Amino acid sequence: MSAALGTVIEARSGQTARREQILDAAEACFVRNGFHRTTMQDLARAAGMTAGNIYHYFESKEALVLGLAERERARGAALVSRLAGGGDRRAVLMGIINQYFVSIPREAAVLRLDLWSEATRNPAIAAMTARFDEEGRDFFIEAISALATAPDCDPVALFETLDGLMRGIVVNRALRPDYDPAPAAARLRGLLDAGLAGRLPTCPDAAPAPETRR
Amino acid sequence: MSAALGTVIEARSGQTARREQILDAAEACFVRNGFHRTTMQDLARAAGMTAGNIYHYFESKEALVLGLAERERARGAALVSRLAGGGDRRAVLMGIINQYFVSIPREAAVLRLDLWSEATRNPAIAAMTARFDEEGRDFFIEAISALATAPDCDPVALFETLDGLMRGIVVNRALRPDYDPAPAAARLRGLLDAGLAGRLPTCPDAAPAPETRR
Repeated sequence: MSAALGTVIEARSGQTARREQILDAAEACFVRNGFHRTTMQDLARAAGMTAGNIYHYFESKEALVLGLAERERARGAALVSRLAGGGDRRAVLMGIINQYFVSIPREAAVLRLDLWSEATRNPAIAAMTARFDEEGRDFFIEAISALATAPDCDPVALFETLDGLMRGIVVNRALRPDYDPAPAAARLRGLLDAGLAGRLPTCPDAAPAPETRR
Repeated sequence: MSAALGTVIEARSGQTARREQILDAAEACFVRNGFHRTTMQDLARAAGMTAGNIYHYFESKEALVLGLAERERARGAALVSRLAGGGDRRAVLMGIINQYFVSIPREAAVLRLDLWSEATRNPAIAAMTARFDEEGRDFFIEAISALATAPDCDPVALFETLDGLMRGIVVNRALRPDYDPAPAAARLRGLLDAGLAGRLPTCPDAAPAPETRR
């Protein structure tokens, strides 16, 4: 490696490290006070930099929110690659469910809730959230289709059921400090397996009308 | 009725009407801009009053948030009473699910998401949210227990499954402007009926371990 190239690589990795440092600080500040009550000054203090320095990496608080979500997504992609190496598709699916929903730390759940709330008003955040949700949806539906053991399995309906439950886990994790996600995870796995085997009333047409008494 | 009593009642109903007017304005402002970016001046303008006048009814923005949640809860209690008059317990349960989750207008879903997000940091809002959630949980578990048609029905586990799905509907309704809650409602009804009949893998102990392949 030439000395010049070495210097460029070192500078890049220094920049990456500083970006990470700023994102870590932003994450902590946002969890504690929310996006709107966090100022660039708070962020600078938490990151141990000047506000001007932070602007060099992220032009606005919105860019930081997008950066945090993008980092989360990159970590998810890395996890999928790592798990996929084992060749067990079900393990990949369960690993993603576990990492992103079941074992989600309270701080990450709070941040996710804030991100959703913010997405209802901020078009850039809404577009990004919609894109990531779409990717997640495609990943899940493909995995469910590949794992289905019965023709009655409806991958889209099963995904929607799991998606609702997973979002519910995030909300409960954020709201209830003593929330235990383990039983929810067990129910999720039970529903997934029942759905894959075509034993779930996941097809809307098969569901009884609201007025039907049992 | 004495003239004096009539005057008191009139004054009271005038006060109630103004409280409602302020809450309606707050709801519209909060949905549009969120709690933190809404100022008392915005609220005053939307309600057609002075800020001083609003402070006469609500001492802070927090009091308005609590007032909105309390109003939502009172409406829910009124709906339960109204539906319960018909004597059909399943109709009451489905009516509540329909009103609060399935048919929820996007604005109400956005407000609910904001309230959850706010509850992660504001102790007064967290306490109120936890109390209302607890009441809802008791109502659901009692209704499910009464409606169960099989000894295998686990009311707590079934409630938790429905709760996750209902929260998921709220999140999706807030995030996806074109979200159609009808299929989710059909899946919810299908799972409710399957659960009541003991045909759901709702018991954590009955769920297979994550490493089990099917």
